[in-house]
Amino acid sequence: MQTAKQLGERAIIEIIWKHLSKAPNMRVPLGDDVSAIECEGGAIAVLKTDMLAGRTDIPPQMSLWQAARKAVVMNVSDFAAKGVKPLGLVVSLGIPPDLTRKDIEQLAEGLNAGAREYGAFVLGGDTGETDDLIISVALYGSAGKKKLMLRSGARPGDILATTGQFGLSASGLKILMEKITTPPRIKGKLVDAVLMPRARLIEGLALARTGVVTASIDSSDGLAWSLYEIGRASNVGFLIDKPPIAPAASRFAITHRLDPVELAFYGGEEYELVVAVRPEGWRKAHEAGKLKSGRLIRIGKATEKKGILLKQKDETVEIEARGYEHFKQGGKRRND
Amino acid sequence: MQTAKQLGERAIIEIIWKHLSKAPNMRVPLGDDVSAIECEGGAIAVLKTDMLAGRTDIPPQMSLWQAARKAVVMNVSDFAAKGVKPLGLVVSLGIPPDLTRKDIEQLAEGLNAGAREYGAFVLGGDTGETDDLIISVALYGSAGKKKLMLRSGARPGDILATTGQFGLSASGLKILMEKITTPPRIKGKLVDAVLMPRARLIEGLALARTGVVTASIDSSDGLAWSLYEIGRASNVGFLIDKPPIAPAASRFAITHRLDPVELAFYGGEEYELVVAVRPEGWRKAHEAGKLKSGRLIRIGKATEKKGILLKQKDETVEIEARGYEHFKQGGKRRND
Repeated sequence: MQTAKQLGERAIIEIIWKHLSKAPNMRVPLGDDVSAIECEGGAIAVLKTDMLAGRTDIPPQMSLWQAARKAVVMNVSDFAAKGVKPLGLVVSLGIPPDLTRKDIEQLAEGLNAGAREYGAFVLGGDTGETDDLIISVALYGSAGKKKLMLRSGARPGDILATTGQFGLSASGLKILMEKITTPPRIKGKLVDAVLMPRARLIEGLALARTGVVTASIDSSDGLAWSLYEIGRASNVGFLIDKPPIAPAASRFAITHRLDPVELAFYGGEEYELVVAVRPEGWRKAHEAGKLKSGRLIRIGKATEKKGILLKQKDETVEIEARGYEHFKQGGKRRND
Repeated sequence: MQTAKQLGERAIIEIIWKHLSKAPNMRVPLGDDVSAIECEGGAIAVLKTDMLAGRTDIPPQMSLWQAARKAVVMNVSDFAAKGVKPLGLVVSLGIPPDLTRKDIEQLAEGLNAGAREYGAFVLGGDTGETDDLIISVALYGSAGKKKLMLRSGARPGDILATTGQFGLSASGLKILMEKITTPPRIKGKLVDAVLMPRARLIEGLALARTGVVTASIDSSDGLAWSLYEIGRASNVGFLIDKPPIAPAASRFAITHRLDPVELAFYGGEEYELVVAVRPEGWRKAHEAGKLKSGRLIRIGKATEKKGILLKQKDETVEIEARGYEHFKQGGKRRND
């Protein structure tokens, strides 16, 4: 019989879904970035859980403070993609017996920092002994009676946009894991993208208020995978004519003879939002995205034809449905 | 520097608390059975997370279906103790690479069964590769504008009661872990208490409605530990004159020359509710506890003098502040 390793994460998730009863009051389909149910009075409760496991998810250069903070940030990023403000979180901490008091303080401070950075609080949790460090965060928020930005509303002709550029994390991870030497000037920026990711919460909340976003997803599985997910959920394809490749990632690619498209589209562990916008609403969305921290970048458009095409100077290439393959053997692919 | 193993779970939790910012809208103190915050409009959102780790928390005779179900039930039990109906849950599943498709189906069905048994739904989650099986459940519910039953309201003179008798799980665990031979007639009941625990949700909801319960806690850390927690939070002691020892546990103790008080008070992994009730409200609480599944048992009373005393036929002994020590080495003590 097939093992989890052979099945892969996506097949595992589908097996699990098949065996679950569907809640009648769900306001977001299974498999979107968050879960949401309508409660008495019509308010929508929003939940998300995502877990970091030491051996597979935490690069050795990442401090425990950074790991704990990141465990919160990656959950906040999914809330950002749906335009929902996080209120509080609970955390299950699996602690290996040899962690020190100082380590535990770092974990607590990292969790707290991640929550406070986005206006939320750590409300409680559970700890137990595990062989490997486990940080499982469950985030809660209320969407009131507002509609959430789902993955499923993009239509042909919609403008495709992102809240930032890509390729920094993939480059940073290469520096950390493959010990590639890089000029300090760009190294800092690339490594920082891995160790101190930021969720686009302000941007997501502002975009949700415009009412012109037809589909939205976070990009933690990589840009290519996120485009496929949003395309599948919306039943459209995408044509990209301005690939959002970060200049620092391009420079890193040139220096080390790497493919910048590979770094930007297939890297993963990036926390930009990828959105589709009604063409007549672009101005409104673009204004909303103009924040201190960044701007909304138009990268292409939704097409009736399925699949993701990238138009470059002299050729058009197909972007593959490849997600983020984890940095360690075992081919773990991040869920969301 | 002290390690996690030397610190123990309770000290670890206190270290973590010290480093967390306190949410201004918390409606339950840190360390109670659940977390709760007041949201816009005054409704109280209730959250709980509790994790099972394969090596330390799952006896070898427990099926994956049972483990997944139990991971839900132990969270529901904390909701029961606060009188809150669970609505939905999200789950982080850490899956070892050699689990089979069948194993994964069992996990999904167990999660679903646990949720449906108590009227809740599995709403989503995250999966990833881990060395050991990890089932981290986060449960959500809304308490509306109702006051929750906390640990902290018991006053001297209040009646102390439980929703059932104790000692079955501790006996069952001995049968499973120490391979003690027992007549099949009682073995089934004892082992069932370990493999198929039940949360007292109906009882908790009914008791909350009476308005006469002054303090409430679930007993997953063991009866003795739960009494200490409720005593500490309420600033009272307890005198027990009718220890709630299950007849099957007594028989098991006699047969195997064990101490029934040890089994009933220090066993843990039981999911009865332990409550204090205003004396003039006892009749009301007792009526509410009269359900198909059981009844509310008066076991003693709250006293001004701190500490827990057990009055037996010819002597009064002190119940120690000992919690559940896990069945494997490492002395993991369950949090709640």
